[in-house]
Amino acid sequence: MKIALCQLHVSCHKDDNIERAKQMLYDAAARGAAMAILPEMFCIAYVQELFRAAAEPCPGGDCAQMLSAAAKQTGMFVIGGSVPELSDGKIYNTGMSFGPDGSFLGKYRKAHLFDIDVPGKIRFIESETITKGDGYPLMIDAPMKTGVEICFDIRFPEWARFIMIKGADILALPAAFSLNTGPRHWELLLRARALDNQLFVAAVSPARSKSAYGHSILVSPDGAVLHDCKDDEGCAIVDADPALLEEMRQSIPVRTARRDDLYTLQAGKQ
Amino acid sequence: MKIALCQLHVSCHKDDNIERAKQMLYDAAARGAAMAILPEMFCIAYVQELFRAAAEPCPGGDCAQMLSAAAKQTGMFVIGGSVPELSDGKIYNTGMSFGPDGSFLGKYRKAHLFDIDVPGKIRFIESETITKGDGYPLMIDAPMKTGVEICFDIRFPEWARFIMIKGADILALPAAFSLNTGPRHWELLLRARALDNQLFVAAVSPARSKSAYGHSILVSPDGAVLHDCKDDEGCAIVDADPALLEEMRQSIPVRTARRDDLYTLQAGKQ
Repeated sequence: MKIALCQLHVSCHKDDNIERAKQMLYDAAARGAAMAILPEMFCIAYVQELFRAAAEPCPGGDCAQMLSAAAKQTGMFVIGGSVPELSDGKIYNTGMSFGPDGSFLGKYRKAHLFDIDVPGKIRFIESETITKGDGYPLMIDAPMKTGVEICFDIRFPEWARFIMIKGADILALPAAFSLNTGPRHWELLLRARALDNQLFVAAVSPARSKSAYGHSILVSPDGAVLHDCKDDEGCAIVDADPALLEEMRQSIPVRTARRDDLYTLQAGKQ
Repeated sequence: MKIALCQLHVSCHKDDNIERAKQMLYDAAARGAAMAILPEMFCIAYVQELFRAAAEPCPGGDCAQMLSAAAKQTGMFVIGGSVPELSDGKIYNTGMSFGPDGSFLGKYRKAHLFDIDVPGKIRFIESETITKGDGYPLMIDAPMKTGVEICFDIRFPEWARFIMIKGADILALPAAFSLNTGPRHWELLLRARALDNQLFVAAVSPARSKSAYGHSILVSPDGAVLHDCKDDEGCAIVDADPALLEEMRQSIPVRTARRDDLYTLQAGKQ
């Protein structure tokens, strides 16, 4: 299945971001993509002070409208990165997905918030502006089943495990790692989730800027980087070949070797 | 805390392996190690046909006797890799650990068995000769709390998560990755477990041979490789600095950001 990694440059201008995202989706479809993934907060630069003014109901706002129309007109699955969602006065970091007929497939509110404080280097407390979601990763019944989580979620192996247990072949991750943690952790985390769960990981960042690392990538179920978009804005069309899933799952059968008599990942509080 | 990564060359001769392991432990202590880790199956080459003849009760056999005496005489914690344990006619892949006074701290029987079949490259079905353990990783109350699992266990993030939840600062992994999976997966898995759980990972392999990849390493809680023993036999004394734990846990507080209202890793079958 051909997947578009839409490494959009995200500015402080919402209308402009939406328009360029739309153009990138049409371009992706013209180049054969069956699924397109946008970055986290694709409609507004990742600056906390800008979130409230850019926030909108999900669905119901400008982003949802564009995403649905683009999905329908291109016939692609569109994993709409994320946008600041306004709901009951609160703001969530929310990803919406749409099917090839333009239908709304569901949304996912980022559950693990990016609170980080590296003295002298970076301080960013996402929970100061964003409310955390209480739902589970969104599962999409595309030709290759896809689970969606957002950015900081990837640091929690439990979340990817849920996606594996629900039968995903692809983990889609709209994200925006920083220039501090990106070089150290981005590729390591994505490769590890792919290998542990024997699925493709398709992770999409905004193009490199003061607040984003870039390096949108596709990782194979073997943990190998199949494509890296590096720094610049651009849309890469990459191929997730199901044969790689079978090869990996048969050669190292960790899925059947799990000891579910010794542990269970339980949803909800015990 | 200074840790000895005892990258022993393991031959088909049990007595000789035990004698050289003993010498390496004394050497490690002389060079200042407070804890020493031996590889998986340190007393016999990783060849299934050799396991039964080399098997012994744990504790109660030659390996336990050497390990206990070496721990007592050197005043080190000794994580005794693993040996083929004979119990009720079955063979387990069992690691024994001993305290600085020579006392037996406990044993751990490898719970996830290495069954792999990469057509044309490698076929090794450990479960044909070894019985899987039904216990949890061994926790050792050393100055830096240490959890022990064995080799293929590392492919299951749940096992490392248990070790984190029980308060470990170090994950010790006696192992023997193959020349097929070692280059592709060894470092990736070890770095990921360290980063996800914000602890040191000290993984010890036999020296490189037809059946072992070598590359014993120490990984920081940041996921960085602090030392790599490469191919040859040797004992590396490496330093696990507790300051790195604090720095990492404060700067990226994933331990408190876990959503234990949304998931729990439950021991036992549901």
